[in-house]
Amino acid sequence: DDYIAKRYRWASSTGATPSEEMNGTGNLMDFLDEPFPDVSTYEDFHTIDWLREKSRDTDRHRKITTKSKESYWELIKSLLDAWSGWVVMLLIGMLTGTLAGVIDLAVDWMTDLKEGVCLSAFYYSHEQCCWTSNETTFDDRDKCPQWQKWAELMTGHSEGAGAYVLNYFLYVLWALLFSFLAVSLVRVFAPYACGSGIPEIKTILSGFIIRGYLGKWTLLIKTVTLVLAVSSGLSLGKEGPLVHVACCCGNLFCSLFSKYSKNEGKRREVLSAAAAAGVSVAFGAPIGGVLFSLEEVSYYFPLKTLWRSFFAALVAAFTLRAINPFGNSRLVLFYVEYHTPWYMAELVPFILLGVFGGLWGTLFIRGNIAWCRRRKTTLLGKYPVLEVIVITGITAVLAFPNPYTRRSTSELISELFNDCGALESSQLCDYVNNPNMSRPVDDIPDRPAGPGVYSALWQLALALIFKIVITIFTFGMKIPSGLFIPSMMAYHHHDWIIFKNWCRPGADCVTPGLYAMVGAAACLGGVTRMTVSLVVIMFELTGGLEYIVPLMAAAVTSKWVADAFGKEGIYESHIQLNGYPYLDVRDEFTHRTLATDVMRPRRSEPPLAVLTQDSTTVEDVETLIKDTDYNGFPVVVSRESERLIGFVQRRELTVAIKTARQKQDGVVSSSVVYFTEDNPQVAEACDPQPLKLRRILNLSPFTVTDHTPMETVVDIFRKLGLRQCLVTRSGRLLGIITKKDVLRHMAQMMNQDPESIMFN
Amino acid sequence: DDYIAKRYRWASSTGATPSEEMNGTGNLMDFLDEPFPDVSTYEDFHTIDWLREKSRDTDRHRKITTKSKESYWELIKSLLDAWSGWVVMLLIGMLTGTLAGVIDLAVDWMTDLKEGVCLSAFYYSHEQCCWTSNETTFDDRDKCPQWQKWAELMTGHSEGAGAYVLNYFLYVLWALLFSFLAVSLVRVFAPYACGSGIPEIKTILSGFIIRGYLGKWTLLIKTVTLVLAVSSGLSLGKEGPLVHVACCCGNLFCSLFSKYSKNEGKRREVLSAAAAAGVSVAFGAPIGGVLFSLEEVSYYFPLKTLWRSFFAALVAAFTLRAINPFGNSRLVLFYVEYHTPWYMAELVPFILLGVFGGLWGTLFIRGNIAWCRRRKTTLLGKYPVLEVIVITGITAVLAFPNPYTRRSTSELISELFNDCGALESSQLCDYVNNPNMSRPVDDIPDRPAGPGVYSALWQLALALIFKIVITIFTFGMKIPSGLFIPSMMAYHHHDWIIFKNWCRPGADCVTPGLYAMVGAAACLGGVTRMTVSLVVIMFELTGGLEYIVPLMAAAVTSKWVADAFGKEGIYESHIQLNGYPYLDVRDEFTHRTLATDVMRPRRSEPPLAVLTQDSTTVEDVETLIKDTDYNGFPVVVSRESERLIGFVQRRELTVAIKTARQKQDGVVSSSVVYFTEDNPQVAEACDPQPLKLRRILNLSPFTVTDHTPMETVVDIFRKLGLRQCLVTRSGRLLGIITKKDVLRHMAQMMNQDPESIMFN
Repeated sequence: DDYIAKRYRWASSTGATPSEEMNGTGNLMDFLDEPFPDVSTYEDFHTIDWLREKSRDTDRHRKITTKSKESYWELIKSLLDAWSGWVVMLLIGMLTGTLAGVIDLAVDWMTDLKEGVCLSAFYYSHEQCCWTSNETTFDDRDKCPQWQKWAELMTGHSEGAGAYVLNYFLYVLWALLFSFLAVSLVRVFAPYACGSGIPEIKTILSGFIIRGYLGKWTLLIKTVTLVLAVSSGLSLGKEGPLVHVACCCGNLFCSLFSKYSKNEGKRREVLSAAAAAGVSVAFGAPIGGVLFSLEEVSYYFPLKTLWRSFFAALVAAFTLRAINPFGNSRLVLFYVEYHTPWYMAELVPFILLGVFGGLWGTLFIRGNIAWCRRRKTTLLGKYPVLEVIVITGITAVLAFPNPYTRRSTSELISELFNDCGALESSQLCDYVNNPNMSRPVDDIPDRPAGPGVYSALWQLALALIFKIVITIFTFGMKIPSGLFIPSMMAYHHHDWIIFKNWCRPGADCVTPGLYAMVGAAACLGGVTRMTVSLVVIMFELTGGLEYIVPLMAAAVTSKWVADAFGKEGIYESHIQLNGYPYLDVRDEFTHRTLATDVMRPRRSEPPLAVLTQDSTTVEDVETLIKDTDYNGFPVVVSRESERLIGFVQRRELTVAIKTARQKQDGVVSSSVVYFTEDNPQVAEACDPQPLKLRRILNLSPFTVTDHTPMETVVDIFRKLGLRQCLVTRSGRLLGIITKKDVLRHMAQMMNQDPESIMFN
Repeated sequence: DDYIAKRYRWASSTGATPSEEMNGTGNLMDFLDEPFPDVSTYEDFHTIDWLREKSRDTDRHRKITTKSKESYWELIKSLLDAWSGWVVMLLIGMLTGTLAGVIDLAVDWMTDLKEGVCLSAFYYSHEQCCWTSNETTFDDRDKCPQWQKWAELMTGHSEGAGAYVLNYFLYVLWALLFSFLAVSLVRVFAPYACGSGIPEIKTILSGFIIRGYLGKWTLLIKTVTLVLAVSSGLSLGKEGPLVHVACCCGNLFCSLFSKYSKNEGKRREVLSAAAAAGVSVAFGAPIGGVLFSLEEVSYYFPLKTLWRSFFAALVAAFTLRAINPFGNSRLVLFYVEYHTPWYMAELVPFILLGVFGGLWGTLFIRGNIAWCRRRKTTLLGKYPVLEVIVITGITAVLAFPNPYTRRSTSELISELFNDCGALESSQLCDYVNNPNMSRPVDDIPDRPAGPGVYSALWQLALALIFKIVITIFTFGMKIPSGLFIPSMMAYHHHDWIIFKNWCRPGADCVTPGLYAMVGAAACLGGVTRMTVSLVVIMFELTGGLEYIVPLMAAAVTSKWVADAFGKEGIYESHIQLNGYPYLDVRDEFTHRTLATDVMRPRRSEPPLAVLTQDSTTVEDVETLIKDTDYNGFPVVVSRESERLIGFVQRRELTVAIKTARQKQDGVVSSSVVYFTEDNPQVAEACDPQPLKLRRILNLSPFTVTDHTPMETVVDIFRKLGLRQCLVTRSGRLLGIITKKDVLRHMAQMMNQDPESIMFN
C-alpha cells in the first residue's frame, strides 16, 4: 500500500513523467486530473474519463457492425467480438478456480508441514496422509502411523517434554522460514503483491490507473507468497488476496481481446466480474461474490456486468469444486447443517453479538490505522522484512501452546461452526458420553459437559484475545494479507463462554455453532461495513437458509454501532490513509458550497489559461504549453467575450503543432491557429499560412454554471465519471473544476468543525 | 393498463389539466416534461426531476440538522427523522407479510370451495379440514369424512356419472362467480387494480407520476380481487399483483412521514424496497426479492436502498412465516430437498430446457402482445367483463377433467418439484411398490413405473399445452393477473416425457423434480429476461443451493435464445404497447446523432420562447404565458447575445406576477421584469416601478453543447434523471431537449431500417 501511495504522491506532486518536471510553474491543476491526449492510453497514476471510454467503445462497436455487412468473415469476427465478453468470463472463472484450488491444497500441506511429515508421500497433508488408514474413528485417524511429527521422526519419541520442545522449535522455525520467503519474494519481485489489495482494487475500479498492479508478475508472486504467508500461521486470511489474484487473472485475459485491453472502461467491467469470481472461490459463495463486487468494490456496475459477474463467479466456484481441495465435494467451505431451529428470544443475544461486532470493528479499524500510520512515520517502516519476521515469531511462539491457535484458522472455524455429532472427537464436544446410549444421539446438549469443554472454553477465550491483538498488527504488512478469516476468528468464542453457562440449566439448548456464525458475521460487518453481501456470503458459506434473520439482525446492529463511531470501513480507511483519489459513492455531500467556491483559478490566482479561436499564434500556443503543465486548455471565441467553444488537450495540441511545423508549408511562429468552423480569410498573400486545428477540438466539453450547488457537481462527477468540468456564467467561461478539486473540497468540508459547517 | 395508457395519452396530448387546453398553440414542448413550479407536487402523468428532488431532500436534511442543535426536543425529532426510513421498512414488511398470508389462506379456502365444503367448519380448506382426521396415510387423509364434495353433500352419492356432472357443473359455476365478482369490483371501484402492475410500477419508479395507482382504494380492491381471480382457476399467478400490493403498502406508509410523502424521489426509494418485499413474500425469497427489485423494477437504486430493501424483504418473509399459511413453518413455498447430486452430462438436457424456455418466452410475448393489441383495437376491448367470463368458462370447462389442471397451480407445482418419497400418494410416484421391501426406500427410481406414471405423463402433456395457450389470453385481462406461476407451470412436464423414457434402462436415474425446477427457471427467464434474480429466487424457492449451476445454465440459454428474437421482456413489451415514458437503462443508444438533431425548435419551427434579463415587460411575459403552454422559459442576457443566465418555471412566473400586481405598488403592464443581480437603475421618477424576479430564477440549468453526441445526452438523462436540458453553442442558447424528445428520438432510431442507421 505504502509503495503505491509513495509513487502516487510522487506522480501527483511532480507531474507524471520526470521530463515534465521542469515545466512546473503555475501549478494550478495537477496532472492527475487532466486528460491525456493519446487516444488509447492514460498515464500511470491518472484517472480515466468514463464518458470518453464509453463513447470510444460505441464507436468501435459501430465500426464492427458496419463492417460485418461486408463479408462473412467480418460477420464471424463481429460475432466473436460479441461473445468475447463471455469467453473472458469463462477463462477468468476457470483460472481463478484453479488457482484457488492449488492455493488451498498447498496451504493445507504446508500448514501441516510445520508439525510433521507424511512418511508414505511427503507431499500429502495430514488429512490426506491418514485418508487411507484403516482406523475407523476420526480420533484414531488423526494419529495414523504414516503421519509423524518432527520430534517423533527425529528422536523416535512422540511424547515427553523433549519432544514437545523440539516440535515447538521446529514449528516456529518453519513459520519464520515461510514468512521470510514470502516477504523477500514480495520485496524483490513484486512490491504490488503486498497487502490485501482490496483498497487498491476499489481505487482502480473507480477509474484510477496503477500500471503493473494487476500484472502477470504480481499474479505469480501474490499466489506463491499468499500460500507462504497463510502457511506461516500469521493471523491473516486468503480472501482479500484471492480477490486481487482474481483481478490479476481478469487483467491477464483482458489483454487477449483488444475490446478490453484498449478501453479502460470496458476493462473495469471485466475486473468487477473478476472480483466477484475471487470472492466466489474464497468462500464458495457465488451469489455473495456478485453482491460483494456490487456493494463493496465496484464503481460502475451496469446490469450486463451483474449477469457476467454471476457467470464468472459460478464458473470459478464450479472449477474449484471440480478440484475439490476440501475432499467433501461441496461448494462451500464450512458447510454446516443445524438441526434445531432458532427461537425469537435468541434475537436478543444475536443483537448483543452485533453490538460486540460493531465495537470490535471500530477498535480494529482505529488500532490498525494507528499502527499503519506509525509504520509510515517511524523507523519501523524502514525494516519491513524485520517487522514480518518479528510478528511471525511472536505469533508462532504464542500460538503453539494453544491447540486452537496452533492449527490453521479455517480448520478451527469449521470446527466452531459445526454442531457436535456423536462421532466428533473435538474437545468442544467432549460431553460426558453415556456408553450405553445407542448411536444416533440427537440430544447431545442434554448431557452434562465434560472437563474437555471447560478447558476448551478457556483456550478459546485466550485464542480470542490473542487473535484480536495480533490481527491489528498483521493487517497491512508487506506480505499478502486478508482479514476475512481473522475477523471471523476474532469473534465467536465469546458467545461460547456466555451461553454455555446460560443454557446449562435448560434442556433445550441453543446451537453454539450458530452463535459462532452470527458472531463472525457481526465482526466482519463491523470491520468492512458490508451488508447484504455479508449476510449472503455467510449463508452461502454455511448453507443455512433458515438463519438469515439472525445473521441479518447481527449484521444490521453491528453496522449501526460501528457507523456511530465512524462512517468508514477498513478499506475506505486504508484508501484515505494512502490518499488515493477515490470518490466514494456512499459519502453524501450535503454542504451548501457552490461550483464557484471550488473552481480554479481562485481570486488571487492568475487568470485561466485559455486559447482563442482565431487570434492565437503558433508561438503563443507554444509558449503556453511550455509555461504551464495543464493537460488541456479551453478555447473561447475571444478574450473579451470569453464564450466557450470547446476544449483542446495538451498532448494533441503539441503533436498537431509539431506535425504542422514539419510537414505543412508556410506554418511559422506567427501563423494564426484557427479553431473556427469556416475557413479563415487570408487577407494578404504575404501573411503566414493559418493552421486549422478544429479537428482536435472537443466540441462538447462538460459545463456547469457557477451557481450550481457542489452537491449536484459531486453527483455529476460521480455518476458520469468526469475528469474535469468547465464553469461558466451567462455563457462566459469562468474556470475549471477537476476531480482532484472535488476530492480536495470534500475532504476540507469533512474535516471542518461540524458547527462551522452548520452555519456556513 | 389500457386505462392508464388512455388517460396518459389524453394528458400528454391536451395538456395536464383541462383548463390549460385552450392555450394549446405552438405546442413545441409537451407538458409531460416541463417542471412544474409548485414546490411539493407534480401533475398527474408527468415525470419528476430527480436532481431537484435530491437537492430538496438535502435542504430538508440540513434544516433538521441545524435545528437539532437548538433543543433536546428538536434533537429527538431529528433522530426520529433519521430512523423513519427503517420504521417505514418495518411497517411495509409487516403489512405485506400479513396481506400475503391472508391472501394465501383465502385462496386455499376458496379454491377448495369450488370442489366441496368442510362440514366441521365451512371456513376450513380441504387440507385444514382433514388435518385432525385420524387416518394416517396421506392418501386416506385426502378422503376424510368431514370434507364433502358438493355432489356428495347434495345427492348423497360421491361416485357415478351424475355426481361427476354435478361436481363439474358446480366447479364451473363457482369459477364464473369468482371471476365475475373480481372483474366487477375492478371495473366499479379501482380500475388501476387490474393486470400485473409491474409495467406500471417500473414506469412509476423511473419517475412518472400516476396518481392513485398506488392508492388505498387500489390496495383494498387489488387484494380482494386477487384472491377471487386466483381462486377462479384462471391461469394466472399472484406474484406480480403481490408486488403491486406491496408497493401500495409502501405508498400508504410514505404518507405518514413528510420526508417521503413530500419528496417524490425519496418515495421511490421506499417503493423499490416495497417491491422487494412483495417478491419476498410471493416466493419466500428475500434475497431474490432484493435482486429482482434491483435488476427488474428499480430505476434509481442506491446502496442505502439495497440495505433497506433487504430489511423490508426479510421482515415481510418473517411475518409470513409467523402466519404460516402453508402449515410447514418454512420460509419457502416449494421447499424441496433432493438427495441425488446432478451429473455433468445432465447439462445438455438443462441447456435444451433453456432453449425451450427461450422459445416459449418469445412465443408467449409475441402471442400475448398480439392479443392485447387486438383487444385494444377491436370490439373485444369494449366488453372486458364478458371477456373475463368467457375465458374463465373455457378454462374451467377444460381444466376440470384433468386432475393436474383442476387443482390450484401452486399445489401442482409443489407436487412436480418434489422427489418421490415412499409415503407419497401422488400418481406421479406410482411406481410398482414391492410390499416386502423395508421402509426407507432410497432407490425408488429403480422400481419399474406403474400405470399411474404413464397416465400422469399424458395428463401432464395435455396440461402443458392447455396452460401455454390459455395463459397467453389471460395475461392482460381486466383483473389482477400475474404470470410467474403460470410460467412455471407451462414448462416442466415436458422433460418428464422425455426423460422418463430415457432413463428407464439405467438404474441411477435423474431427479425429475430438478428438471421441473430448471424448466420453470428457463421459461420464466424467457418471458421476463430476469437473470441473477431469477436464479436466486428459484434456489431460495426450493432451498437447493447445490443446483445453482443447472439453473444458471438454463437461465443463460433461455435468455440468449429469447434475446435473439427480440430484446424486450414481457414487461418492457407492455410498457411499449402502452407507450409509457420509460427510459430503459438497458437499451444501449449507439447512433451517431447529435444534440442539435434532437433539440427543439427545429429549423422550420418558430424560435424558442425566451425571456430577457432586463428588457421584458410584465405585459410581454403575460402574453408569452398566455400564448404558449411550455412549463418554463430560459432567460437570456439579451435577444442579440442569447447568453443563457437561467431557467424560470411557468407556474412560479405566473404566481410571482399575479402577487406583484396585487401587492406591489407601481407594478403595471409596462413595468420591466428584471432577472439581474444588481438593482436596476430607474432613470426617471415617472417610469413604472421595476419587478425584480431573480429569486425565482434557477441559476444552474443543465446545459450541453449542440455538438454533444446523443449517446452522451441519453446517458446524462438516464443517470441524472433530468426532465430537460438546454442546448448551447459558444455560450449562445440554441434550444431545449426534454425527456420526451429523447424518448421520441430513441424510438425513431430503433424503428429505422438498420441499414440506414449504419450509414447515417
